[in-house]
Amino acid sequence: MKKHHSMKKILPALIASSALIPASFAVAEDGLEDYRDRFDALPYLPPIPSDNSLSSEKVELGNMLFFEPRISSSGVISCATCHNPALGWADRIPRATGHDGQVGERNTPTVLNSGFLESQFWDGRAPDLEAQALGPIEAGVEMAMDLDSALARLNEFDLYQRKFEAAFPNDEDPINADNLAKSLASFQRTLNTPHSPFDRYLRGDMEAISDQAKDGMVAFVDNGCIACHRGPELTDSQFHAIQVPGSTDLGRYTVTGEESDKYRFRTPTLRNVAVTYPYMNNGATETLEESVAIMGREMLGSEFEEATINDITAFLHTLTGEMPDFEVPALP
Amino acid sequence: MKKHHSMKKILPALIASSALIPASFAVAEDGLEDYRDRFDALPYLPPIPSDNSLSSEKVELGNMLFFEPRISSSGVISCATCHNPALGWADRIPRATGHDGQVGERNTPTVLNSGFLESQFWDGRAPDLEAQALGPIEAGVEMAMDLDSALARLNEFDLYQRKFEAAFPNDEDPINADNLAKSLASFQRTLNTPHSPFDRYLRGDMEAISDQAKDGMVAFVDNGCIACHRGPELTDSQFHAIQVPGSTDLGRYTVTGEESDKYRFRTPTLRNVAVTYPYMNNGATETLEESVAIMGREMLGSEFEEATINDITAFLHTLTGEMPDFEVPALP
Repeated sequence: MKKHHSMKKILPALIASSALIPASFAVAEDGLEDYRDRFDALPYLPPIPSDNSLSSEKVELGNMLFFEPRISSSGVISCATCHNPALGWADRIPRATGHDGQVGERNTPTVLNSGFLESQFWDGRAPDLEAQALGPIEAGVEMAMDLDSALARLNEFDLYQRKFEAAFPNDEDPINADNLAKSLASFQRTLNTPHSPFDRYLRGDMEAISDQAKDGMVAFVDNGCIACHRGPELTDSQFHAIQVPGSTDLGRYTVTGEESDKYRFRTPTLRNVAVTYPYMNNGATETLEESVAIMGREMLGSEFEEATINDITAFLHTLTGEMPDFEVPALP
Repeated sequence: MKKHHSMKKILPALIASSALIPASFAVAEDGLEDYRDRFDALPYLPPIPSDNSLSSEKVELGNMLFFEPRISSSGVISCATCHNPALGWADRIPRATGHDGQVGERNTPTVLNSGFLESQFWDGRAPDLEAQALGPIEAGVEMAMDLDSALARLNEFDLYQRKFEAAFPNDEDPINADNLAKSLASFQRTLNTPHSPFDRYLRGDMEAISDQAKDGMVAFVDNGCIACHRGPELTDSQFHAIQVPGSTDLGRYTVTGEESDKYRFRTPTLRNVAVTYPYMNNGATETLEESVAIMGREMLGSEFEEATINDITAFLHTLTGEMPDFEVPALP
């Protein structure tokens, strides 16, 4: 992990540099340009919604709130408990474990690069990070805190009063649910990993990934993985039906009630997939090799050969980026 | 919080500088020298036991293990859950909440400067950090993991195999309970706060604390608080009988079985006391003012006047140091 820097200093640098980095700067060639052209390097920042401009004050406040366990009813569970920065901003257990040790139905997705997703949660029930942010606070199996109590708790601290005022200077009563969501979403939009070996490769460094990983990239395209895992985030943000071993989860159907949505889940990102094990909606699959085999069989109707599985796995490892800078905040 | 640096870089600097800082360097005088002489500035490092030399490799490994939730049976509780760096390396709830949301009997002590203590836990049942380290892993209300399972879990990761080998190069089978304890203890010995305003004052900076805090220091001495809260860590490491409201905890008696040890607890450190609320063995007291009043009444037989309470509270605030540098590790 790199040295940590305060968000105040990083954010302007991030915004400035994202305009300056050329999308492609090929200095050599390895004969795979047609394959590389099928992929997109990850931008430095995801889209910012017009009604929640990204300010240093919101990011700093969101960073505090992300690590704040007192907005859980036990007082010990924060966003960072399950989205643990030490564990790829996820939890590396099959299914999320929350309030009173209750185990949820689904595997915790990483928050890394989540600002690039077109919908949030495995079933896409939230359109964006703002709509997502408050769900886990209120969920009985997660933080189990009603929102009014969480806001009242924050209001007890002078420091939070000052930080909310600084982040939302036009609001008369800034400690409210909207601003809690906006701050958390702003912080999460800074948690991106644009410097993976694969991004460096796409930006022209032909040596950034191994020959086996290049073979894996070719197999990923030729076998059709890229049909769903595409774009900078390597997901189409669409819902596809899959029933992995041990799962009875109805997926997207629980949101829409449409029969055709039964067992559909949003294609997960493959960014940092090597450090966000275990896999699948129920976290029942431990290794990338097994996951690649399952996806080939269930989604593409192919029994991949072992060599193909190993090549694709080598490619997936190149999608692990540098973990983003952040600080463990000093909470009041 | 300061910028974070890797322990590899900090440790040699810490060790070098601790020899160079003069114990006292008075450049001015405020007429309180006799009072200042009753106190000791905090050294940069606590005593290091002869059978666990402090190496960068152990500190780095201990840092990883401190944030490692997979040595708990739920897979989500690490040392850092209750000894949370965002919350003064404690948890800011009355009594520790651990496995399956169970609530323990006692308030979580901070790990800050804990290497200076002559015994560990409220009841002193462990003589040092090595003896303390494994307790919470196995405690049913904390991490609830038997030690063999914890060690087996660590053994599954190549990275831990390499890190244990590097930290304990002479051991044939380095992933064992002793070395787990030694690594955690080594990391904790680096979590010190020697730069508090009061330390700067003791080292000669007459402006480092306010006049009210100086009045508080005087009151702290004159009223006898210093009888038990003394030395660099502001504790005598002795056990004193106190029954605070709501507590039926037998304290030291549970360790020794001696009738005279009933309700005795080790004098807690006052270092960083302003950021390690709530107070008392059962965490039932929220504010420093209330705590000072209780201690005056219960331990010294005095009903402190409000002005005295406020002065002592101002003094206690000067014991908050800079939080130590550390990194959230990238776990395997």
